[in-house]
Amino acid sequence: MEERQTRAGQASYSSAGAESEGRGPERLEAFSDGVFAIAITLLVLEIRVPAADRFVSPRVLLDALGELWPSYLGYLVSFVTIGIMWANHHNLFRHVRRVDHSLLLANLFLLLGVGFVPFPTALLAASIGEPSAQVGVLVYSGTFVAIALAFNVLWYRARKGGHLLRQDTSRASIEAITRSYRYGVPGYLLSFLLALVNPTLGMVVIIALVIVYLLPRSSGA
Amino acid sequence: MEERQTRAGQASYSSAGAESEGRGPERLEAFSDGVFAIAITLLVLEIRVPAADRFVSPRVLLDALGELWPSYLGYLVSFVTIGIMWANHHNLFRHVRRVDHSLLLANLFLLLGVGFVPFPTALLAASIGEPSAQVGVLVYSGTFVAIALAFNVLWYRARKGGHLLRQDTSRASIEAITRSYRYGVPGYLLSFLLALVNPTLGMVVIIALVIVYLLPRSSGA
Amino acid sequence: MEERQTRAGQASYSSAGAESEGRGPERLEAFSDGVFAIAITLLVLEIRVPAADRFVSPRVLLDALGELWPSYLGYLVSFVTIGIMWANHHNLFRHVRRVDHSLLLANLFLLLGVGFVPFPTALLAASIGEPSAQVGVLVYSGTFVAIALAFNVLWYRARKGGHLLRQDTSRASIEAITRSYRYGVPGYLLSFLLALVNPTLGMVVIIALVIVYLLPRSSGA
Amino acid sequence: MEERQTRAGQASYSSAGAESEGRGPERLEAFSDGVFAIAITLLVLEIRVPAADRFVSPRVLLDALGELWPSYLGYLVSFVTIGIMWANHHNLFRHVRRVDHSLLLANLFLLLGVGFVPFPTALLAASIGEPSAQVGVLVYSGTFVAIALAFNVLWYRARKGGHLLRQDTSRASIEAITRSYRYGVPGYLLSFLLALVNPTLGMVVIIALVIVYLLPRSSGA
Repeated sequence: MEERQTRAGQASYSSAGAESEGRGPERLEAFSDGVFAIAITLLVLEIRVPAADRFVSPRVLLDALGELWPSYLGYLVSFVTIGIMWANHHNLFRHVRRVDHSLLLANLFLLLGVGFVPFPTALLAASIGEPSAQVGVLVYSGTFVAIALAFNVLWYRARKGGHLLRQDTSRASIEAITRSYRYGVPGYLLSFLLALVNPTLGMVVIIALVIVYLLPRSSGA
Repeated sequence: MEERQTRAGQASYSSAGAESEGRGPERLEAFSDGVFAIAITLLVLEIRVPAADRFVSPRVLLDALGELWPSYLGYLVSFVTIGIMWANHHNLFRHVRRVDHSLLLANLFLLLGVGFVPFPTALLAASIGEPSAQVGVLVYSGTFVAIALAFNVLWYRARKGGHLLRQDTSRASIEAITRSYRYGVPGYLLSFLLALVNPTLGMVVIIALVIVYLLPRSSGA
Repeated sequence: MEERQTRAGQASYSSAGAESEGRGPERLEAFSDGVFAIAITLLVLEIRVPAADRFVSPRVLLDALGELWPSYLGYLVSFVTIGIMWANHHNLFRHVRRVDHSLLLANLFLLLGVGFVPFPTALLAASIGEPSAQVGVLVYSGTFVAIALAFNVLWYRARKGGHLLRQDTSRASIEAITRSYRYGVPGYLLSFLLALVNPTLGMVVIIALVIVYLLPRSSGA
Repeated sequence: MEERQTRAGQASYSSAGAESEGRGPERLEAFSDGVFAIAITLLVLEIRVPAADRFVSPRVLLDALGELWPSYLGYLVSFVTIGIMWANHHNLFRHVRRVDHSLLLANLFLLLGVGFVPFPTALLAASIGEPSAQVGVLVYSGTFVAIALAFNVLWYRARKGGHLLRQDTSRASIEAITRSYRYGVPGYLLSFLLALVNPTLGMVVIIALVIVYLLPRSSGA
């Protein structure tokens, strides 16, 4: 039956899938886990140790560390957001049985966004408190609009592709994931639009979204 | 029986868990392994190669390398500490059979601390020998107080959550882990408090904790 | 039969393979996945946050971000290319049952090229728009010529080594992979040669190759 | 029988091992793979893109790229060496069935050395051609003496610890590994001692060792 689903001579992915059915999405998940784990851990490199002349006294160093608060905030918000996105990715792939070319590409574009996060995070941290803070918030929320879109595309491909989901996936599970992804794009779009008016408002929505995602019932991105 | 433990419509994590029971915490462990491995390997980036003008003679370069001793110390202490924390994490998850939303979050906050370690390590190395050394030691031990707290919360969630532990986990194993976590928070808190009086004393306690953890019988963090 | 394939006292790899047959290429794949995932995620570090004096106004920061377009282009092209190479690597190893010393080395040289990609990417981004753009494009396409060659060597070793492929690998699958690798070397060689005449032409071919790889039917590198 | 090997109340590692026998060294290998893969991929960060004023013409940029040859050499030698060490690590752990506290620590000290390699590599690249080249070579070969020692300690612990090796490990396999580790310490020690006389001689031995390791029959570190 699996053999029939895969046309001979098709993209080598599916044809390989037909032969070694047992492996499924495991390596794609391992690769994705790596990208999520590295992106989340690279965030710390954006928190720069104060310059040598700030170590002259405990008072001066404490002030220098205090001035870094936008970097801590960026680390915190981006770390938790990537962590939740990883959990969503993991949850989505629990239901995936087989990976085809389009799912692979959809996943690659999602990872393109996830791997990019350290840049808007550093930009946001550098712009907070500056006259250009608005640009920092816009780029930051814009990045997450794109990632949330990529998640929706990935999930759409997983559902609409040929028999990619596990057969024991219940309609309730599918609907729960679909529902949880419903809020990511409008949420970050709202923070983007509000930042056009007032960057602080945009930031508030971004932080509110993180808090909402931490609540037990929701798990969208 | 598993199905009964998971309420339908609950956070998508558990509902997925009910369907693909076989996967359990494996991907959470893989992701966590990645974060631990990357954080531990990024530490080396904080050891900066001496400036170009220190390569004029072997003598001058040796002096420059000698002046880097706080960086070597920071690398050594943080590497071994993260390594032991990884071992504890591994040991804890050996007993975990199922991951729910709260365990996922507790793990994420632990990783938030682990991924942060390169920053206080670099700060410590930069502050040793400076008038602001006290701040470096305080931030360093404060970070490990927070990580030790996160380990306790994680273990508390694992024990108190609904049937998250493996059924063959013996009471002796549970008590051994609980016992080993008993010393992390007070130990790093002691180094923090001593550093308020004298940063060298705080540093001595931090190093002593690493040595204690390396002894066969203890494995807390 | 497996035992007969492995001469006693041979390179420790194969002799171990004879004893613990079950493990096959899994750890080699995990290690390779790690290198691919890290190389792809390090790319973002080459996109530098603008200097502090570019944050004086939204207008100035937007200009500064606009000037970074070669970095975004480099990130995008290298990310997608490494992603496709990962998919090809994954696809190739689906058919590998056993790893011998020569396959291990061929894989190591492939990873040597993959791990190097962040450097030519940064060089390309720094050279675009400069009088030395030609050098940037030549080094970039030259790197991918080398990687495409390494892929061919790896695949050659996998096919020609002693019984390294899975027995259920069909001739069609082997030919599909061989065919897909046919275009990588000439493609990047073409971009290299065109860049000798005109760097923009070379760049166009590189981007065209990425687009071709994204199409469903092809998956070479 | 396994239960009898593990005393109740012992270090939590072994007691857990008794309960979830099936997991063995897998996560230790995954964590180690991560450290090897990250250390090997971080090497590229030490190859710095030439300064902006070197992009004024193809000629000048080519010269600047040519001057980076010590960085390419360092990347090549360290990449291949870490790759071979990874293969040896993988080969050693194929025979490991159970991990105890002392094996965990021996492995951690090995990883401490592996994770450190980017620093001596950068130092070597920066010192070649400078009057202080000798220091660069000494630190580099000294690091690999330490890593080779750590490999021997790890293997000693694996053989001497209580029933840590798989029962189907043949004496021939054990002797092959022991034999292959015989050359690492004296080899790097030789390069260290020769570098005391002449850094170029030390470098020649380091490169010769890499070539020897690439030959089919040997696989020590």
